[in-house]
Amino acid sequence: MDETLLMIPGPTRVAPRVLKAMSENVVNHRSAIFGKILNETTQMMSDVFRTNNKSYLITGSGTAAMEAAMANILNPGDKVLHVVGGKFGQRFSQIVEAFGGQTKIIDVEWGQAVNPDEIGFALEEDEDIKAVTVVHNETSTGVANPIKEIGKIMSDYDALYVVDTVSSLGGDEVDVDGYGIDICVTGSQKCLAAPPGMAAITLSNDAWKVVDKVDAQSYYLNMKKYRKSGNAEPPETPYTPSVSLMYAMHEALTVIMEEGLNNRIKRHHLAAKATRNAIKALNLELFPKEEVSSATVTAIKMPEGVSDGELRGTMRNKYRVELAGGQDHLKGNIFRVGHMGNITHRELITTVAALEMTLKELGFDIAIGEGVAAVADTYLPDDI
Amino acid sequence: MDETLLMIPGPTRVAPRVLKAMSENVVNHRSAIFGKILNETTQMMSDVFRTNNKSYLITGSGTAAMEAAMANILNPGDKVLHVVGGKFGQRFSQIVEAFGGQTKIIDVEWGQAVNPDEIGFALEEDEDIKAVTVVHNETSTGVANPIKEIGKIMSDYDALYVVDTVSSLGGDEVDVDGYGIDICVTGSQKCLAAPPGMAAITLSNDAWKVVDKVDAQSYYLNMKKYRKSGNAEPPETPYTPSVSLMYAMHEALTVIMEEGLNNRIKRHHLAAKATRNAIKALNLELFPKEEVSSATVTAIKMPEGVSDGELRGTMRNKYRVELAGGQDHLKGNIFRVGHMGNITHRELITTVAALEMTLKELGFDIAIGEGVAAVADTYLPDDI
Repeated sequence: MDETLLMIPGPTRVAPRVLKAMSENVVNHRSAIFGKILNETTQMMSDVFRTNNKSYLITGSGTAAMEAAMANILNPGDKVLHVVGGKFGQRFSQIVEAFGGQTKIIDVEWGQAVNPDEIGFALEEDEDIKAVTVVHNETSTGVANPIKEIGKIMSDYDALYVVDTVSSLGGDEVDVDGYGIDICVTGSQKCLAAPPGMAAITLSNDAWKVVDKVDAQSYYLNMKKYRKSGNAEPPETPYTPSVSLMYAMHEALTVIMEEGLNNRIKRHHLAAKATRNAIKALNLELFPKEEVSSATVTAIKMPEGVSDGELRGTMRNKYRVELAGGQDHLKGNIFRVGHMGNITHRELITTVAALEMTLKELGFDIAIGEGVAAVADTYLPDDI
Repeated sequence: MDETLLMIPGPTRVAPRVLKAMSENVVNHRSAIFGKILNETTQMMSDVFRTNNKSYLITGSGTAAMEAAMANILNPGDKVLHVVGGKFGQRFSQIVEAFGGQTKIIDVEWGQAVNPDEIGFALEEDEDIKAVTVVHNETSTGVANPIKEIGKIMSDYDALYVVDTVSSLGGDEVDVDGYGIDICVTGSQKCLAAPPGMAAITLSNDAWKVVDKVDAQSYYLNMKKYRKSGNAEPPETPYTPSVSLMYAMHEALTVIMEEGLNNRIKRHHLAAKATRNAIKALNLELFPKEEVSSATVTAIKMPEGVSDGELRGTMRNKYRVELAGGQDHLKGNIFRVGHMGNITHRELITTVAALEMTLKELGFDIAIGEGVAAVADTYLPDDI
């Protein structure tokens, strides 16, 4: 299979020990041995979410978990407030529309973070809002939203606080219980560095109270069934899960426990800083302001005079480093470097060196080595 | 990981070459290399469905594909006729209820097959029926429903013909185009012998016409999005798929192509016959009548004087062969032997020998070796 270095915002490079875990024999998903694996995996998942509540693993993409979050708390006609500052914020509102819910949008310019006060104003104005959705790390724009500060505001209101941490959990600060998040969802293939195909969700007691009053608008994603199966002995999933991906999640989460969640988050922040420093050293322009920049994906304005196809095509085909392009109206206007999961100075140096060569080759007047030096400087101790 | 021989109706034993495929590097799911794999996998999937229409792979269990089948063709209040003769027939109706549809049930005693005429009568009586759901192989009872004959009747009516072949496709005769099936769904972990976690669906032109008129009641399972992404160049899935499971499906379907679908179906029928012959040789009683018995799972009445825990527990813990129990009201009353996927005389001889030892140990007066001999006799050429 392909050896291209994936520097996209998911899927990220999966460690050999995690890939190897998937090649183990498939066991009966309703057996004690699988129950033990499921139990340990969900427990580690809750540790990473930083919650005392149970977590549930869903075979599906992060979008499936976003849908689970909405399908279990809404009756048709219920109103949800969405922070929309990118493709994934938008997705939450599209899901609610599919369920016949009412959507109220806080429109944030793509590339900017939401002002938490705006959420307070909206909730003050309309007490029918049943839930608020926020995407922590807007993968499409490289912006991190202030979910801690939003949590403080949300604590004054009854509306459920729903946060998508698909591309941040395990790479940036997320404290589900500490921030008062009612429903938190994530995916396997981003900072957790497991293969794609599994999503996770956790719900607070307040969220469960709402779930218990709603007839879920999905069968596959009915969380009451997940709760019931999860409480069985041995614990199960309601429908046949991807046993192999559960092995992978178990192993990937074990890697996280071994590294330590705090160390891992620090490592991501350092990688983000190194990336930004390299970009600035090459006289390229960051898309979001540095103070709202994501810890896991850096969005960069496409330099004038070069097309997305030239830049990313050369990176991919000649230098075997895969970057992501822009989405929707940002297509062609930005490119994105994912630095999620098992990312060290090595991958960043490789990436930045390839970017330097690519730009030089495309006719840009850049000083080869300046970007790489900026990465190295960022990783070197301050006193050197 | 556990070495217990899985003789349950899914997940089934996965060949080492398929397990190994999953340990390949994860590639970008929006790349030419993945597009090629996706394209080949869906093409082989259509070949196994025996349809000229496109197939779509969904990251999720077979239940997710059942939900996709319903969520895309129903508006709230629409009426569906369900053949219910077991747990999975029931599931279709529960899914429709979750979407606010009306369900009309043809109740079939668990352990019996539906009489196709009953479907004709029901359609004759009520022209509001928008779709008919049939589970080909009712995993919970070991019964195969006559989907070919039902197809002939359905051809006189406009209602969509929706068939669940989760536990039959690749092991029993299914001819989607030949039988006039409008929506057919299956799962990865049964006769296809891939790991669990992926489901497949295919839709006829008539089905697409309905889909195009309906606002899908799901976002993750919106088939219009799957069609659009599938037609992109390179082809994609709308949301991040399980790349590793796609490798596994690709490899498992390649195994099927190498064996030949007809050979594979014959092999399953032979395994089913050998299993039934062994059961009769041991004076145990089949649950369904032999003429409606499944080609992929055999349900057997629990012999009097033994509990499910004793029989299956001894099989599992002492002889390392895992069988399935009964579900719902059949719990404790039947046990089930799955003979799906990579099943040969070897696994059946091991299983039947273990069953003989287990029964002997539990105090039954059985002639050790009679069951094994019946398996061997079934596999030997007729003229020996």
